[in-house]
Amino acid sequence: MKVYEYNPFPNPRRVRMFLAEKGISDVEFVQVDVPSGEHRTEAFLKKNPSAAVPVLELDDGTCISESFAIGRYFEDAYPEPKLMGTTPKETAVIDMWHRRVEQSLMGSTVTYFHHATEGLGPLELYQNKDWGEKNREMARAGMQQLNEQLATNKYVAGDSYSIADITALCAIDFALFIKTEKLEDYPNIKRWYDDVSNRPSAAA
Amino acid sequence: MKVYEYNPFPNPRRVRMFLAEKGISDVEFVQVDVPSGEHRTEAFLKKNPSAAVPVLELDDGTCISESFAIGRYFEDAYPEPKLMGTTPKETAVIDMWHRRVEQSLMGSTVTYFHHATEGLGPLELYQNKDWGEKNREMARAGMQQLNEQLATNKYVAGDSYSIADITALCAIDFALFIKTEKLEDYPNIKRWYDDVSNRPSAAA
Repeated sequence: MKVYEYNPFPNPRRVRMFLAEKGISDVEFVQVDVPSGEHRTEAFLKKNPSAAVPVLELDDGTCISESFAIGRYFEDAYPEPKLMGTTPKETAVIDMWHRRVEQSLMGSTVTYFHHATEGLGPLELYQNKDWGEKNREMARAGMQQLNEQLATNKYVAGDSYSIADITALCAIDFALFIKTEKLEDYPNIKRWYDDVSNRPSAAA
Repeated sequence: MKVYEYNPFPNPRRVRMFLAEKGISDVEFVQVDVPSGEHRTEAFLKKNPSAAVPVLELDDGTCISESFAIGRYFEDAYPEPKLMGTTPKETAVIDMWHRRVEQSLMGSTVTYFHHATEGLGPLELYQNKDWGEKNREMARAGMQQLNEQLATNKYVAGDSYSIADITALCAIDFALFIKTEKLEDYPNIKRWYDDVSNRPSAAA
């Protein structure tokens, strides 16, 4: 199995953290030079017509894109430890919270970055600055919602560490890197952040 | 169990179709007056702070929002017939294609509608017309990608009918309703559309 990725970006880190939590090591990582536009070459578009990393290529040549779908493959192929829930209710709650943090934290922060940052070159061919600024507001609302959730829950989706924590951490570390957010504004997120950042998977 | 929804909208139909395909009938449907802003009332925000329908309320009071997460609950609680795959590879491919049609067809078409339609009132508090028009282009690219996929696949994610077909049909019927797309432009989608529209679930 191969994972095509670009190491500095937040979405590929989601897959590396997921594999680290599962203890899966038989995966080869291949770097795609996204800042130079390699993700838009004909060869790469055959692997993912959506022109994005990460992509998982199975040994039979099947390509799986979308970070969550890649996680789904590994959750089913290597069931323990569970990162997507055990009971129907727990699985659905994790999926719901994963989508919330994926859209409001990861999606909005990345959209802000793509639309409101100058000089991105081939990384972003269309920019809409007003939409970018709107997404910064949406990401802030997502942080406030998560801060409330973490007032009464140890992890993003409840009592157990899950894929929702992985995506939230990758999104928040990216927001801290581009300086759109400060942890001091969100005391419950800060408590959770210090906890999950200390897991070995956070270094993946 | 209750599902809070607004019958005319495309996302609630995803859940009704999913339940119809599963043959699940012990669910009460409760209408939320979204055009009048009922989804932004304090009572509804307790069920879904993201202010959107559909929402599944379990008998213990747990609320699950996000159409796919609601599907996930019913897939695990009522496993047959499978709508999210059987093997790890099939499940991941369905998840990937579901995300593609959810983002590029449903997401882009709904975003176009919300941002480029005048007079929506409380349905949309922020509009960015240029972003709306960009989404119309993105929806068209999504239709072209799906048309290619359906040249060699019976269903959206391969040989089996799945949740990806449900979301694609709901998105495309919405696009036909608001007249952004015509089936004649996409012969493979037309063949698939006639097939899946004839299933009893399409009337849900």
